[in-house]
Amino acid sequence: TLAAPAIAQENPKITWRMTSSFPKTLDTIYGGADDIASHVSSATGGNFTIQTFEAGEIIPGLQAADAVSAGTVEAAHTCSYYFWNKDPTYAIGTTIPFGLNARLSNAWFYQGDGNTLMNEFYATQGLYGLPAGNTGVQMGGWFRKEINTLDDLKGLKMRISGLAGSVIAKIGVVPQQDIATADLYSALDKGVIDACEWVGPYDDLKLGFQKVAKFYYYPGWWEGGTVIHAFFNLDKWNGLPKNYQAALTDACAFANTNMLAKYDVKNPQALKEIVADGATLRPFSQEIMEACFQAATGIYADISKSNASFKKIYDNQVAYKKDAYLWMQLSEYTFDTFMMIQQRAGKL
Amino acid sequence: TLAAPAIAQENPKITWRMTSSFPKTLDTIYGGADDIASHVSSATGGNFTIQTFEAGEIIPGLQAADAVSAGTVEAAHTCSYYFWNKDPTYAIGTTIPFGLNARLSNAWFYQGDGNTLMNEFYATQGLYGLPAGNTGVQMGGWFRKEINTLDDLKGLKMRISGLAGSVIAKIGVVPQQDIATADLYSALDKGVIDACEWVGPYDDLKLGFQKVAKFYYYPGWWEGGTVIHAFFNLDKWNGLPKNYQAALTDACAFANTNMLAKYDVKNPQALKEIVADGATLRPFSQEIMEACFQAATGIYADISKSNASFKKIYDNQVAYKKDAYLWMQLSEYTFDTFMMIQQRAGKL
Repeated sequence: TLAAPAIAQENPKITWRMTSSFPKTLDTIYGGADDIASHVSSATGGNFTIQTFEAGEIIPGLQAADAVSAGTVEAAHTCSYYFWNKDPTYAIGTTIPFGLNARLSNAWFYQGDGNTLMNEFYATQGLYGLPAGNTGVQMGGWFRKEINTLDDLKGLKMRISGLAGSVIAKIGVVPQQDIATADLYSALDKGVIDACEWVGPYDDLKLGFQKVAKFYYYPGWWEGGTVIHAFFNLDKWNGLPKNYQAALTDACAFANTNMLAKYDVKNPQALKEIVADGATLRPFSQEIMEACFQAATGIYADISKSNASFKKIYDNQVAYKKDAYLWMQLSEYTFDTFMMIQQRAGKL
Repeated sequence: TLAAPAIAQENPKITWRMTSSFPKTLDTIYGGADDIASHVSSATGGNFTIQTFEAGEIIPGLQAADAVSAGTVEAAHTCSYYFWNKDPTYAIGTTIPFGLNARLSNAWFYQGDGNTLMNEFYATQGLYGLPAGNTGVQMGGWFRKEINTLDDLKGLKMRISGLAGSVIAKIGVVPQQDIATADLYSALDKGVIDACEWVGPYDDLKLGFQKVAKFYYYPGWWEGGTVIHAFFNLDKWNGLPKNYQAALTDACAFANTNMLAKYDVKNPQALKEIVADGATLRPFSQEIMEACFQAATGIYADISKSNASFKKIYDNQVAYKKDAYLWMQLSEYTFDTFMMIQQRAGKL
């Protein structure tokens, strides 16, 4: 008997298109899409290929999820929170202010209820989603003047995206969300805005913000572990052979770890360059952090009143967060603290 | 023309055996081997199957690497540092005292020089290796009496494995490495040993140490991010079709993240149970940590004098460690610190 036809059937030639919400110049974050494509192709002997496109090449960056829902493209590499205006539940898929860090986010998605709950929601949007990249905790961004008190934030015009804009507006900042990436540097230079957040040292250095805003604040409390998702059109996903679904799942797992690894290797060098170029590093004060935390939890309570999907997933994540940050205080935190003390002392 | 034969050739039926160095009762760490096997099978439509065996089923746990080198089995799921007596370079593959945490370990392996350098060494041993699991920072273990000063450690008989035993011996501990896992509880109960380290709350709870040693110390400074490797016989790996190598690579990436996720979900619950059962949590003092750190760096300097392979890889990792722990002090550390303060205040 000839087994060949059955095997051939399992490995049909398929070509998909994946639109990214990021430009190729952001090689770290855009690279996640290329990782997925190249790994799936390799694992399927070139039978399942995915063409990747940067933002705007075939689909505008912020329309990626819609294009996948509609089946215009089969896949996107994007941030779920870009679509929070359609439904704030989208925001939880990426990260919400004072959410989980990258490691705990993986725990919640892979072994907690994250992937199951988010995909219950994504299914209502015609999507299937998998974590496929993470930036780690982002920086708090660039400020033209020093921010010492809550009063210093009042009336400050800051480019800050998504739900974080609503949070920081509650303490008096005037969020600016309509400035294109290409115009950010000039807006900051001319004082059209007083501050802007972007990602972290490696991506920020490319835009050169340190030349026009001296103070580089941390942490980016609104981005504790920013997840980049791979979204697939739900019907197309369900129609894939099981072995292709499996290859795609593992390719996303690889891309997920590899992106964070790339940031963790590239950010330290970029940070040194930024500081050498004159930037001053400053932590947000405890007073500011507390006020923002309170504003954020207030907003989550408000959204939960009217959005059952958000409430269900948010409550699940918070329950895990409480336990996780209890456990992380022991070995993880004390080990890292000790190592950082050695680092500062020049003993590593 | 018929394309089927070519496709069939890319997907030959292959069955491999993977021996684990762990018992099935440690479902978290043993589960990594099952993850690899099930994911590879799924991604190849069942054509490439890997049978998994627990420690001792076909190969004793601590002979896993030798069995793979010799080709007795094609693969193992084990810790590289178990074989440090053959060559201390093996230790770096897993973790060395005061090494990298789990996240930075991934960065070094995936995007630093870790995978390249370790595989240069593994190739001399007839092996190809990929990270395929991580426990995170382990606990410092169980002590029958409180340890406040360096003097309290003098003459203490402690079960502690590998290179960490040599480090802690330098400050007066008498390391015990010949006690089988099954006998640890009884040895601690009867005072044959004064202390023992194992993994962390989830695994430790199964052995019930809290019933016979009250003090549970942290952090396990000798296990900042313990990597579990998948080892493959080098010739067998090189003989695999490229698509099977790709599927196996991504399956290991999945297993790597999934194991840490499982620990991060299971450890918090286990910690609560352990404390409810009477354990007292204690951090090692700064004095003890500093003395151990000094002892460790002294040992690395000694090994480096006579082992070029160790020196090359160690120096590379240290260079990354210095940069990484500089960068991690900013957003990562301050975000986590703030979140832990909220956790303690009951505000999460």
